[in-house]
Amino acid sequence: MSQSVIDTLNNRVSIRFYTDEPIEDALLERILQAARRAPTSSNMQTYSIIVVKNPEVKKQLAVLAGNQKHIEVCPVFLAFCADIHKLEVALHMHGHELKKSLETTLVASVDASLVGMSVQTAAESLGLGSVMIGSMRNHPKEVAELLGLPQGVYVVYGMCLGWPDKTQVPPQKPRLPQDLIIHKERYNSSDIRGTIDAHNKELAEHYESLGRNLDEAAWSGPIAQRLHKPVREELRKTLESMGFSFD
Amino acid sequence: MSQSVIDTLNNRVSIRFYTDEPIEDALLERILQAARRAPTSSNMQTYSIIVVKNPEVKKQLAVLAGNQKHIEVCPVFLAFCADIHKLEVALHMHGHELKKSLETTLVASVDASLVGMSVQTAAESLGLGSVMIGSMRNHPKEVAELLGLPQGVYVVYGMCLGWPDKTQVPPQKPRLPQDLIIHKERYNSSDIRGTIDAHNKELAEHYESLGRNLDEAAWSGPIAQRLHKPVREELRKTLESMGFSFD
Repeated sequence: MSQSVIDTLNNRVSIRFYTDEPIEDALLERILQAARRAPTSSNMQTYSIIVVKNPEVKKQLAVLAGNQKHIEVCPVFLAFCADIHKLEVALHMHGHELKKSLETTLVASVDASLVGMSVQTAAESLGLGSVMIGSMRNHPKEVAELLGLPQGVYVVYGMCLGWPDKTQVPPQKPRLPQDLIIHKERYNSSDIRGTIDAHNKELAEHYESLGRNLDEAAWSGPIAQRLHKPVREELRKTLESMGFSFD
Repeated sequence: MSQSVIDTLNNRVSIRFYTDEPIEDALLERILQAARRAPTSSNMQTYSIIVVKNPEVKKQLAVLAGNQKHIEVCPVFLAFCADIHKLEVALHMHGHELKKSLETTLVASVDASLVGMSVQTAAESLGLGSVMIGSMRNHPKEVAELLGLPQGVYVVYGMCLGWPDKTQVPPQKPRLPQDLIIHKERYNSSDIRGTIDAHNKELAEHYESLGRNLDEAAWSGPIAQRLHKPVREELRKTLESMGFSFD
């Protein structure tokens, strides 16, 4: 049974706790094949998916992601890679060199994102739980070595997949008010601080109802804490050393 | 009726021809609200969606995208924006400045990609047709002016939505063989030129069956033609001038 798209999306939460049940190969195959119909810029398919089940590799990836236990315990971990290596091979076949640029890096990162989102929606529609792992960008080079990635391939993000432990399914978090997200005809440039303030309170109440006592400014506070200093400041240099261009 | 995820993805093709029927506001709302449950890095929601129905604006966007008529004629055009403007406001509320970097640019671009993919899957599950428009990156500054985007917001890609003209639904294109895309445990670094050659022929036969006589190397040929020279070479400078960092 595959759930409807609307229900799957409306019900979704990130799942970090799984039962011991494995994911059958045929099911995973069905998910990946469906997701491969996701759109891709100019039919280039500038992405790769690495399917990781090896416990030792998952353990190391969990450490590289800042000790995220769910990476270690999930039965299947997927790494969604921007892949311009294949483009390079294609160009060589015609006696050309790939002219790398910010555009080729962006296209590949977007392609990887589109297919990963499709994998997640497909997996969740079949009852699987999942969580995306952006921290694959903490140590892109070490991750690439672990997964044997050639030059021109980096992991944009990962994804844990498993059957949800139903005793540990979190409630949905409220999203930002839609006025901050959905704009009619033109970007709404009015003062949004009041709306953010209201959302801060709404989110704080949500956390409080779960017994978590966080920052009163529950949305903007943690963001301010994290982003007033550099995050992943080596990323550009590292990705350049891995064969990507930002020019 | 909302179709299952698996069926929606398995049946998907990009739709560029639409009937005259409008898209009801309530339906669009249902799609956008479901898609807003897509995952977002650290709950930051660093994206915005501009809903464009104004015929004059769509006409101008169509021209900026290299005369893509479907942008002009679709009843609803959506612009999926990477949006770090909201982060900047959030940080100011705490007396901080956003430390922009490649990471903040990438996170916002990925967030916009995830929500856009979710919109597309939701829309298609309800019978709508759609096509993503990467050419919004041809002239990012002009697009931003047209949509009133503040600094720190750029359109990663757009999307046409409309009810499919059923007489003009294209057949699905074959995708690259899965060995080139799905890797078990480690990236498969064997020589892929033979597989690309085989796919070139498969794709050429597909085009031939549609009466289109293209390059014999139907996959790698057009890629080599396009990517041996610079593509969107002003992109980095333009996005920097729009408030994004790649450092």
